[in-house]
Amino acid sequence: MPDAVLTQGRASLSADSSALEVRLAARHDGFTGHTSGVASAHVQVNLAILPAALADDFRRYCELNPMPCPLLAVSEPGSPALPALGLDLDVRTDVPRYHLWRHGERVAEVNDLRACWRDDLVTFALGCSFSFEHALLAAGISLRHVSEGRNVAMYRTNIPTRGVGVFAGPTVVSMRPMKAADAIRAVQITARTPQVHGAPIHIGDPRLIGIADIGRPDYGDAVAVHDDELPVFWACGVTPQAAIVAARPEFCITHAPGYMLVTDKLNSEL
Amino acid sequence: MPDAVLTQGRASLSADSSALEVRLAARHDGFTGHTSGVASAHVQVNLAILPAALADDFRRYCELNPMPCPLLAVSEPGSPALPALGLDLDVRTDVPRYHLWRHGERVAEVNDLRACWRDDLVTFALGCSFSFEHALLAAGISLRHVSEGRNVAMYRTNIPTRGVGVFAGPTVVSMRPMKAADAIRAVQITARTPQVHGAPIHIGDPRLIGIADIGRPDYGDAVAVHDDELPVFWACGVTPQAAIVAARPEFCITHAPGYMLVTDKLNSEL
Repeated sequence: MPDAVLTQGRASLSADSSALEVRLAARHDGFTGHTSGVASAHVQVNLAILPAALADDFRRYCELNPMPCPLLAVSEPGSPALPALGLDLDVRTDVPRYHLWRHGERVAEVNDLRACWRDDLVTFALGCSFSFEHALLAAGISLRHVSEGRNVAMYRTNIPTRGVGVFAGPTVVSMRPMKAADAIRAVQITARTPQVHGAPIHIGDPRLIGIADIGRPDYGDAVAVHDDELPVFWACGVTPQAAIVAARPEFCITHAPGYMLVTDKLNSEL
Repeated sequence: MPDAVLTQGRASLSADSSALEVRLAARHDGFTGHTSGVASAHVQVNLAILPAALADDFRRYCELNPMPCPLLAVSEPGSPALPALGLDLDVRTDVPRYHLWRHGERVAEVNDLRACWRDDLVTFALGCSFSFEHALLAAGISLRHVSEGRNVAMYRTNIPTRGVGVFAGPTVVSMRPMKAADAIRAVQITARTPQVHGAPIHIGDPRLIGIADIGRPDYGDAVAVHDDELPVFWACGVTPQAAIVAARPEFCITHAPGYMLVTDKLNSEL
């Protein structure tokens, strides 16, 4: 495991941690590491936090693009709670890293939102591919980025989403290299959980979905794809982030890709 | 459609033909064409007809290798009937083409078995990938060999089966080229019908399963695999044929690959 992870307060967290342990570690104990592979029985979610004026359009955008944007919960305006996903849960503090955006430009990466919170902010929680990794690992399918302690590799594609109002843009995918037999099983396993992206949207040649260089992900960390493996691509919850950035709202907040909110919901409930 | 098919009594048969129409066409009307795409709602089966002395081992071989050898029915010794698969059904006459084998050598291709039938012959009927093609086509997935009026391409692989007694050998696969999105859907669709080979066993690079040249199938007809497609491979009912040939029984009968027995059973029942 890279030193960077160990120095981010992750040393005490593991696949067996409870969701609340991970949230409290982020809230109080300086945990700022990525969440791939921690509390692995639990649903992890992507966050998009937007001014209320944009909330209706964004909700509709998610509904029209359910594979990259599987909507699991929406907050009341101004509330940092998401009671459907956990009772002791504060979206302002419980994510290891957040990105702050103004007019489509990232202006800061922070570990706490309390200083910039506003009464009109609406939080959207979207399903994340980390959630189905638990099922893949349970089926004996090895995931290279997990075994190497890296963030999953993510790429912008040439597959457009269906636009609503100011929200539009390309589908972002996460990629996991697998032998063909595992890829076939992974299709069957992930197809069962449409709330966390469902089946892959592409397998094989990355150029066919507009990825020029598989070795240079747009988000996360590169992993090797061996000669006897296929890259397998799932729609990714970073997709709505890309749409939000392109929409250039005067202010918004996202989680940092790979640094998710870990909820009390179990993957087995999906 | 190639002339060869039209001259084989196939002109009046179609995807909408009844199973009995196909069997009667083979029995009485000189239909000797392949059955890909005809009576497409019906389960088509591979046949292996063996002396009773080998039947127990062959049955066990099928049970240990259910993906290539999905056993749907077994006859009484000497009986040409398979009542589970159709009441007006005679395995001696209802298949368009048969291969006769002696000591592992093919000695004849015939259209009727009555002249060579024996009282000790046991017929094994095994699920066939043609059956799931109906579900794929219904889902809007185009199958090149069907649209081009060809037999499906089949290959011997380096994937061994589990041997029983004299029966052993490589897994034979059928191949259908597809765009990745269709391949992903095809995995989900075919996984639902393990009685007809289930999900694919390989996707992508043919060399990884011992196929040196995708353009030269061991059985059936070659079809093009375009640059934006993946070859998708399913375990194939020709596998037990290969095992039988290798076992070199003093006498046995198989259907000719692609020229199947069409049963009254509906694919929707599987």
